[in-house]
Amino acid sequence: MSNEVFSNIPEIKFEGPDSDNSLAFRHYNPSEKVGDKTMAEHLRFSMAFWHTMNGGGSDPFGADTAQRPWDSVSDPMEQARIKMRGIFELTEKLQIPFFCFHDRDIAPEGETLAKSHKNLDEIVGLAKTLMKTSKTRLLWGTANLFVHPRYMHGGATSPDLKVYAYAAGQVRKALEVTKELGGENYVFWGGREGYETLLNTDMKKELDNLAAFMHMAVDYAKEIGFDGQFLFEPKPKEPTKHQYDTDSATVYGFLEKYDLLPHVKLNIETNHATLAGHTIQHELHFARINGILGSVDANQGDTLLGWDTDQFPTDLYVSTLMMYEILKNGGLHRGGLNFDAKVRRPSYTVQDVVEAHIIGMDSFARGLKAAHSMLTDGVLEDFNAQRYASWNSDLGKKVAQGKATLAELEKSVLNDPVHVPASGRQEYLESIVNRYI
Amino acid sequence: MSNEVFSNIPEIKFEGPDSDNSLAFRHYNPSEKVGDKTMAEHLRFSMAFWHTMNGGGSDPFGADTAQRPWDSVSDPMEQARIKMRGIFELTEKLQIPFFCFHDRDIAPEGETLAKSHKNLDEIVGLAKTLMKTSKTRLLWGTANLFVHPRYMHGGATSPDLKVYAYAAGQVRKALEVTKELGGENYVFWGGREGYETLLNTDMKKELDNLAAFMHMAVDYAKEIGFDGQFLFEPKPKEPTKHQYDTDSATVYGFLEKYDLLPHVKLNIETNHATLAGHTIQHELHFARINGILGSVDANQGDTLLGWDTDQFPTDLYVSTLMMYEILKNGGLHRGGLNFDAKVRRPSYTVQDVVEAHIIGMDSFARGLKAAHSMLTDGVLEDFNAQRYASWNSDLGKKVAQGKATLAELEKSVLNDPVHVPASGRQEYLESIVNRYI
Amino acid sequence: MSNEVFSNIPEIKFEGPDSDNSLAFRHYNPSEKVGDKTMAEHLRFSMAFWHTMNGGGSDPFGADTAQRPWDSVSDPMEQARIKMRGIFELTEKLQIPFFCFHDRDIAPEGETLAKSHKNLDEIVGLAKTLMKTSKTRLLWGTANLFVHPRYMHGGATSPDLKVYAYAAGQVRKALEVTKELGGENYVFWGGREGYETLLNTDMKKELDNLAAFMHMAVDYAKEIGFDGQFLFEPKPKEPTKHQYDTDSATVYGFLEKYDLLPHVKLNIETNHATLAGHTIQHELHFARINGILGSVDANQGDTLLGWDTDQFPTDLYVSTLMMYEILKNGGLHRGGLNFDAKVRRPSYTVQDVVEAHIIGMDSFARGLKAAHSMLTDGVLEDFNAQRYASWNSDLGKKVAQGKATLAELEKSVLNDPVHVPASGRQEYLESIVNRYI
Amino acid sequence: MSNEVFSNIPEIKFEGPDSDNSLAFRHYNPSEKVGDKTMAEHLRFSMAFWHTMNGGGSDPFGADTAQRPWDSVSDPMEQARIKMRGIFELTEKLQIPFFCFHDRDIAPEGETLAKSHKNLDEIVGLAKTLMKTSKTRLLWGTANLFVHPRYMHGGATSPDLKVYAYAAGQVRKALEVTKELGGENYVFWGGREGYETLLNTDMKKELDNLAAFMHMAVDYAKEIGFDGQFLFEPKPKEPTKHQYDTDSATVYGFLEKYDLLPHVKLNIETNHATLAGHTIQHELHFARINGILGSVDANQGDTLLGWDTDQFPTDLYVSTLMMYEILKNGGLHRGGLNFDAKVRRPSYTVQDVVEAHIIGMDSFARGLKAAHSMLTDGVLEDFNAQRYASWNSDLGKKVAQGKATLAELEKSVLNDPVHVPASGRQEYLESIVNRYI
Repeated sequence: MSNEVFSNIPEIKFEGPDSDNSLAFRHYNPSEKVGDKTMAEHLRFSMAFWHTMNGGGSDPFGADTAQRPWDSVSDPMEQARIKMRGIFELTEKLQIPFFCFHDRDIAPEGETLAKSHKNLDEIVGLAKTLMKTSKTRLLWGTANLFVHPRYMHGGATSPDLKVYAYAAGQVRKALEVTKELGGENYVFWGGREGYETLLNTDMKKELDNLAAFMHMAVDYAKEIGFDGQFLFEPKPKEPTKHQYDTDSATVYGFLEKYDLLPHVKLNIETNHATLAGHTIQHELHFARINGILGSVDANQGDTLLGWDTDQFPTDLYVSTLMMYEILKNGGLHRGGLNFDAKVRRPSYTVQDVVEAHIIGMDSFARGLKAAHSMLTDGVLEDFNAQRYASWNSDLGKKVAQGKATLAELEKSVLNDPVHVPASGRQEYLESIVNRYI
Repeated sequence: MSNEVFSNIPEIKFEGPDSDNSLAFRHYNPSEKVGDKTMAEHLRFSMAFWHTMNGGGSDPFGADTAQRPWDSVSDPMEQARIKMRGIFELTEKLQIPFFCFHDRDIAPEGETLAKSHKNLDEIVGLAKTLMKTSKTRLLWGTANLFVHPRYMHGGATSPDLKVYAYAAGQVRKALEVTKELGGENYVFWGGREGYETLLNTDMKKELDNLAAFMHMAVDYAKEIGFDGQFLFEPKPKEPTKHQYDTDSATVYGFLEKYDLLPHVKLNIETNHATLAGHTIQHELHFARINGILGSVDANQGDTLLGWDTDQFPTDLYVSTLMMYEILKNGGLHRGGLNFDAKVRRPSYTVQDVVEAHIIGMDSFARGLKAAHSMLTDGVLEDFNAQRYASWNSDLGKKVAQGKATLAELEKSVLNDPVHVPASGRQEYLESIVNRYI
Repeated sequence: MSNEVFSNIPEIKFEGPDSDNSLAFRHYNPSEKVGDKTMAEHLRFSMAFWHTMNGGGSDPFGADTAQRPWDSVSDPMEQARIKMRGIFELTEKLQIPFFCFHDRDIAPEGETLAKSHKNLDEIVGLAKTLMKTSKTRLLWGTANLFVHPRYMHGGATSPDLKVYAYAAGQVRKALEVTKELGGENYVFWGGREGYETLLNTDMKKELDNLAAFMHMAVDYAKEIGFDGQFLFEPKPKEPTKHQYDTDSATVYGFLEKYDLLPHVKLNIETNHATLAGHTIQHELHFARINGILGSVDANQGDTLLGWDTDQFPTDLYVSTLMMYEILKNGGLHRGGLNFDAKVRRPSYTVQDVVEAHIIGMDSFARGLKAAHSMLTDGVLEDFNAQRYASWNSDLGKKVAQGKATLAELEKSVLNDPVHVPASGRQEYLESIVNRYI
Repeated sequence: MSNEVFSNIPEIKFEGPDSDNSLAFRHYNPSEKVGDKTMAEHLRFSMAFWHTMNGGGSDPFGADTAQRPWDSVSDPMEQARIKMRGIFELTEKLQIPFFCFHDRDIAPEGETLAKSHKNLDEIVGLAKTLMKTSKTRLLWGTANLFVHPRYMHGGATSPDLKVYAYAAGQVRKALEVTKELGGENYVFWGGREGYETLLNTDMKKELDNLAAFMHMAVDYAKEIGFDGQFLFEPKPKEPTKHQYDTDSATVYGFLEKYDLLPHVKLNIETNHATLAGHTIQHELHFARINGILGSVDANQGDTLLGWDTDQFPTDLYVSTLMMYEILKNGGLHRGGLNFDAKVRRPSYTVQDVVEAHIIGMDSFARGLKAAHSMLTDGVLEDFNAQRYASWNSDLGKKVAQGKATLAELEKSVLNDPVHVPASGRQEYLESIVNRYI
């Protein structure tokens, strides 16, 4: 059909592990049951508009390389329309149920904020129309508060009130648009919410302003009846020298201090975890036990490189241990696995983009099955029940209830001979994981 | 005198910047006024028992190298007595007003906890006697919950209740001892409070237990009338794969969640800051604006190496920016600058130890003077007052009071032409710092 | 039998992938053919005396934790005898054909070099006797030039000639001993050959001395008829601030400059590779194409930590890509896969040690099979043949022969329209690897 | 004057350390003698066309911020002319004697290589004309083989011969142009000479091709009578996953293997050093003792960040230790100190650019004076002469001459009691450096 955007891309089907077809799933079979849910229900994949539609492959030392169907279209609004049609096509062909976007991803900025709103409205109208005949839904929306020069010192943490006000305007509109499109979540990612140098930074004022900003967003959502989940996305650095949303624990402390915990959960990204010096499993685990695991940006970094490579997730250890935490969380609920991932700069064709999504999806399908088996077999669970068993004693329970004292604890061991705890058996436990991969 | 421990070390005096004497201060002049306080009052230096008395120079690939006056003494209690006399001598010769210790630094562990207490009591008695004729005081005490094999999985986060109970016993005693010696603070450093692998870790239970432990310590301090300040010391990793007290922001969130903020401040270490990917200025600044800057472990790391090198602080940028934050905090109050620093392994003589402390003290003396001048001249302060001036408007104040809305902020800029904030002038501000170094 | 050292450890057998027995191989089946060689011939595993016999679990913040059969034996020579018997037992039970050692691992240092030689002779005699009835052989020997305080500034790069001379004496003896025991290789690892600070370092003199040292060793080997392979082991840092044997490329340049390339190959360690910022595949590939891939220290690091964790290798990506390079090298020839790996500090039992070796061996067995299949199927090989096909043209060949000029190359494209090369298809290639894991 | 590009920028003059003028030198006084040369002769500063004229401030998360006099000029050739006039103006106002450029920095790429040459010729003509009345000279030229998509897999290491040929054409022309403008050096920087993944890389072929390429360049220089110095610039990673020119030692090995040492020296960059895990002092020292210290890209990185920040050099430790190595090298000879540095993204005004250069120049002026005094006073030199004194003995000389044997060295210490070398006194030596800063 003449106005199909990705006419050369077929629908991607499950062909099983032995398939030689690079345009087929070998492991992801959406309707296959894993436990009591289908793979599709477990994984809730999402495509990222910014990378998949807008990513050109440029880096600090190189120009765009990507070759896309709309390269010859010069009118920005016309390009925006083609890309929006494109993402609906591509998600359907790949059986990806969701997409995500920033306001400026889908419609070009105008000369004024008012004109930008107008551009956005038009494209959102198109998306709404497309949704009528498509299965594709919106996982989350957000506002881009980092690309434009006005945000060089931050958006919701800018030292300049006019910039803060502009950011407020973008977010107000982005909330409306997200609601309009039935978005299940709204994300804050603070790409410029941090500092380049402390020499010119009043961190307290900036954090106070950031919290005030988020409260206003929460209030506005209530006002317009948007019931999606708010998500805050941790990252320690890049583009800024230091980002205020460093990691899950830092964001937890921030949300707690400013009474935002009832309103905001986390959107956790694998590559951001490693940039912060943590495994993704750590970040998910921390969020899970604190009740703030909201959604996931599924990608992977290169731990030997110091910047955000946003690679497609292929490491089966990563996908298995992620799914392990997610299953222990009872799933992602309203969140999903959003491929905040981009093809490598030299992988510049549309086919590369499709293959990359397939690899990501297959990797999580394998991870899901491995994690589910590990949990079902319970080897790790049993090991750990035994490991912490002493806490089931009366004294252990007293500690948990906050009724024990140093003195009575001391008394229980004061004249004991040397006692050491049981081995942690890490190597054995790692072999258990290998057994399931 | 025959029983002097460091008979070859003279009293260290101020000789001014042109001195060629490696056993003299060139910048640290304790009685010199900087602003309305003396250098000694500002800096509150402390010597670390573990490094300066016990450090032998071993590393994972090498044996001890240090040559010390007590090397030929084989009885552990006799050695403990000599070292205690030694630290009083050395602090006096170096005009260092404080020292710090872990329980096991100053007295050897016995066969049972009860016997360890006995050893400790004897040496504490000696210290108390020495204090009668010495100016040296105790900055802080703490318990070593990381060296012994029993703590391989943690002390206050051990999966084994007996180990937790043993840790409780050590801390109970250490609190008493710290009180006995007039200690101004009590420190928690969680060298093993973290995990090696998440595969065998129940993080929630461990964190709950850690918080319960700290509450018991706070309660016991109250019970015995110890009014010192409690301090928690951040570090992201090493010896464990992951430590729960990662950095200032993480610890803040933990203290807040478990209602420990009213009781506990931070003991911040330079090398731990860089291991966490932060500058020490960041860590001090964060603690300062959150009201939890308690004390400082003054050393420096090598940011090209990935482990805790605990070098003596010599970098004048570091000491200047640290003192800048400390002055803005109104000083360290009950805290101090503790040299949690060790001479390099090949610097194995007592003279090296003394010279290293001198360099550390001179570096902070220069940092103090530079920071004080920067603040007095106000170049940075004025710049930043201007930078955030827009927040003094009515709309800015409304945001601060939590009374603004996204809608009214948006309205204020909706039809404005593109506006960008003023330059951050980082390079200029860095030249200002160079001007004062 | 009463004098068996590890009487509780059974012989480890292959039980297949579904076995629940943590003391069995699930993948390593020594006599199984992979291509034209058995697994045992391909993998040539070796046990490291220092970790497996001597490792106690201490770290910079903690004492030894290991519980070993000889813990109660206080005489150092008697302990040395037990350990030597122990490693023969353990290698046989684990079907590991080789072991490796440093001189000081197997026999205690004496008061003088002469007395140390005497200790060494006795234990070497024992080893020789044990070899008569054992299949276990010596992969390589080496001298420990890093633990003793005399080596604080280096051995073969010490600024002190007496230390250099002592190192020479140790190496002379170690070469004889390695020959005596039929060792197939001799390794130099320069744990202290580097510097702590350039302020006191004359790098040129130190590198010249190091090269002279190695030439003397090569000469001495010739003199005594030792025909084993010399190996140099790269590592960038730790214990020193900077090690001269940084990585494969650095060592290559050193060997080339000092005419050592004909005599010395590399012993490459996985964890050292990542500390240098490289993947192990990179290091092996570089050594392979330069003809200096000698042997491998098989372990793995934690790329989120900055020190040498020497973990047992469990990552199947690592083992697969290592075996891929090794197969392309035509195998390791006289080298082997030496487990320079230690159990985690909390894995303190002998059972942990055995399980850890099993995991390592199983991981390499899986890696071998995956790599062999990848090479047999040729997917990557075919892709790359196509990728570099343009170099088979006449002009391409001329470049290879050094006969082309800039001018003629330019002329061939001077008026061409824009041309871009084919996609690198990294994501697709990564999915190929996943297919084989 | 109407056609002045930077009409608002005054000539920058020396006003001494107490000046409050941010547009004045406080330390750099070009005609001041330091030893037997002027500051200007020692430092040979250079301005980088790419950063100072072309840098816009974009980063992977943000658009350009820079505001420049030519922003409203849309014709690329007209912009190129203005910028070329601009760099002559700015270098003169800042008393910077040199500039550096890539071919594509100064003139836009055309539709074909031939048309690009034509654009280049025109702008080079302009530069030549400007040189007639200006003191500004060319430190080095180079070709940009990394920005254009054709170079996605490398230029001189591309798997595609057409791309290699195109690169050859660019380099041929760039050599001519560099000669035409009297350039003193020609630089190779291999921004894409490396790999993204080993899965699609034939490293041997790529390195062979790279060497062949450099030989062709050397030959062509000879052919056209260009007698400038060739320089190769190390960097370990970014933009690629791995760059073949990793660090000084790696490049040394490459040059040696391929017989390029007689023709090529190094251009060493501070930020690239730290990305490789080395100090800049290490890289300069290594190059110096191997006779390949050619020129310097003077900037600084942030060792807590993992990417190339290219900040202006302000750290006085860095500038002092750099000048220390450079003075020991007898100066930079035909090389210079090129500010391969860019203002921070939020420092977007021309005034920021000028202030940043001033800070860089003042920092090196202070470093030069400090290093010169250290060398003149000889404290470090004397210490080290003593440290290595044992090598002046007969036995020491015999080692240096390659005439010693392991046996005779051993014999000299065989029955000695334990001997340890003298302390390295690192802390004392660090205090010496502080004395001069």
